[in-house]
Amino acid sequence: MKNITLEKITEAASQSFEGLPDERQRLLVQTLLKQVHNFAREVQLSHTEWRGLLAFLHRVGDISDDSRSEFSLLSDVIGLSSLVDLLASKPGSTPGSVLGPFHTVGSPWLANPVNLIGANPGQPVLLRGRVSDTQGQPLPEASLDFWQNAANGLYWQLDPQQPRDNLRCQLRVEADGSFEIATIRAVAYQIPTDGPVWTDLLQLAGRSPWRPAHFHLIVSAPGYRQLVTELFDAEDPYLDSDAVFGVREALVRPYQRVSDAAACQRLGLAGSECLEMRVNLILAKDGAS
Amino acid sequence: MKNITLEKITEAASQSFEGLPDERQRLLVQTLLKQVHNFAREVQLSHTEWRGLLAFLHRVGDISDDSRSEFSLLSDVIGLSSLVDLLASKPGSTPGSVLGPFHTVGSPWLANPVNLIGANPGQPVLLRGRVSDTQGQPLPEASLDFWQNAANGLYWQLDPQQPRDNLRCQLRVEADGSFEIATIRAVAYQIPTDGPVWTDLLQLAGRSPWRPAHFHLIVSAPGYRQLVTELFDAEDPYLDSDAVFGVREALVRPYQRVSDAAACQRLGLAGSECLEMRVNLILAKDGAS
Repeated sequence: MKNITLEKITEAASQSFEGLPDERQRLLVQTLLKQVHNFAREVQLSHTEWRGLLAFLHRVGDISDDSRSEFSLLSDVIGLSSLVDLLASKPGSTPGSVLGPFHTVGSPWLANPVNLIGANPGQPVLLRGRVSDTQGQPLPEASLDFWQNAANGLYWQLDPQQPRDNLRCQLRVEADGSFEIATIRAVAYQIPTDGPVWTDLLQLAGRSPWRPAHFHLIVSAPGYRQLVTELFDAEDPYLDSDAVFGVREALVRPYQRVSDAAACQRLGLAGSECLEMRVNLILAKDGAS
Repeated sequence: MKNITLEKITEAASQSFEGLPDERQRLLVQTLLKQVHNFAREVQLSHTEWRGLLAFLHRVGDISDDSRSEFSLLSDVIGLSSLVDLLASKPGSTPGSVLGPFHTVGSPWLANPVNLIGANPGQPVLLRGRVSDTQGQPLPEASLDFWQNAANGLYWQLDPQQPRDNLRCQLRVEADGSFEIATIRAVAYQIPTDGPVWTDLLQLAGRSPWRPAHFHLIVSAPGYRQLVTELFDAEDPYLDSDAVFGVREALVRPYQRVSDAAACQRLGLAGSECLEMRVNLILAKDGAS
């Protein structure tokens, strides 16, 4: 290593991580290093540009804290988060989509069917679905972790007016894999626009800060690959410009006006008609490639 | 963009930055994005690994502040900083090497020849050099910005025992391009080992934290490309394992014991012998490709 040249530096830097005992970590570090070097070589990165990149990362770190990760947001808006979701999605199963920053572990377990509306303003809707394997067989041991924003666009963590755990729950499906959640229609909202990801990057690019309205779901069942996904409102105007590239065709679901007095009554909805969204959630076997 | 698939996401994410009005910035963002996507695809990055990467960046941000950039250190130890130096180095000129975190703008201008030893313990040395163009013609309008660490391994900013601006200065060369700096021999030192770059990455890889002893120099002259470089002590045991990949053959300089009573007296060194390091610093014309 005594004489580091342009021809040798990438190999020398890669070689310096040969001692990482975990084979997978070694591959990750060496591959990322190689691609970062490829970037610098491809654009002939100048000192000024390099310093600008470091200063940007510094600003991203400055605004991040325990309850806010601007690094996650950066990953989201360059499509990296969604790429990881897509890499994990298996053919024949429901595609994954971004987890986002508002999931928290440990939502209350509630009985299925469930009514989350409480005192929330907003348009009442009934989300009805079924969890199955890729052959269409119901998965009676499946459970859901569900969360969404309120009519003002905010998740409960960001809104002192909302009770703790507002519009979120965990539940187990029925023996036939079915579930029913009475809730309100989720609304579109903006990613944070007070940090460097917005001010130094997206705003300059004329990007939209909007995310189309969506429900978040994590679907789990023993022996099956956990599914982290979202369901999108088919009428949302921002479907084509989701700031974090989360929209997949199979996740865009229409609302339909249905007449189902029994369901409405069971779920505590006034009247005998409601807006309904239906979804099949299909899990791949664990370890399936 | 309504249906983001594994095949389409990289193009969609790249396309989302088409609105960046600065052509060069657009190229940088789109190329970096492409290489980050390439990395995720090449290793089939999992959710767990992706979260680990974000958490690492979060920790790098946490320990960074106005006087410490762990992002710079990360760039250094993966060879990115040196790669940028090498990309900027032009054939025939002295190669560049890492700026490092201890340069500050505005060192005191002192008259050439200069004696920086003052009350510093350490082995006195005489650094003698000449600044020229690639044809060997002296550059009488050149100036130097010089800094180094003290005998305890510390730069003055990190050491309350050292006076402000200890062992650093700016100076103008003579009409023949020459300069003389009486100083002490720089010593090897360790990169910071209290942050995530060390504890979560280099330590696991069994990497050395040492940097071989070096002087820092920035050489400027009107009409010439500014040179940011280092000069290394040829006897240093860490030349082959510099933690930041800064060593280039042309920058490794031997000390020689010389007898030069006039120089010693001029520079306030006791006796008529001293350790001397000689260097030719060659600048490329501005804009030379």
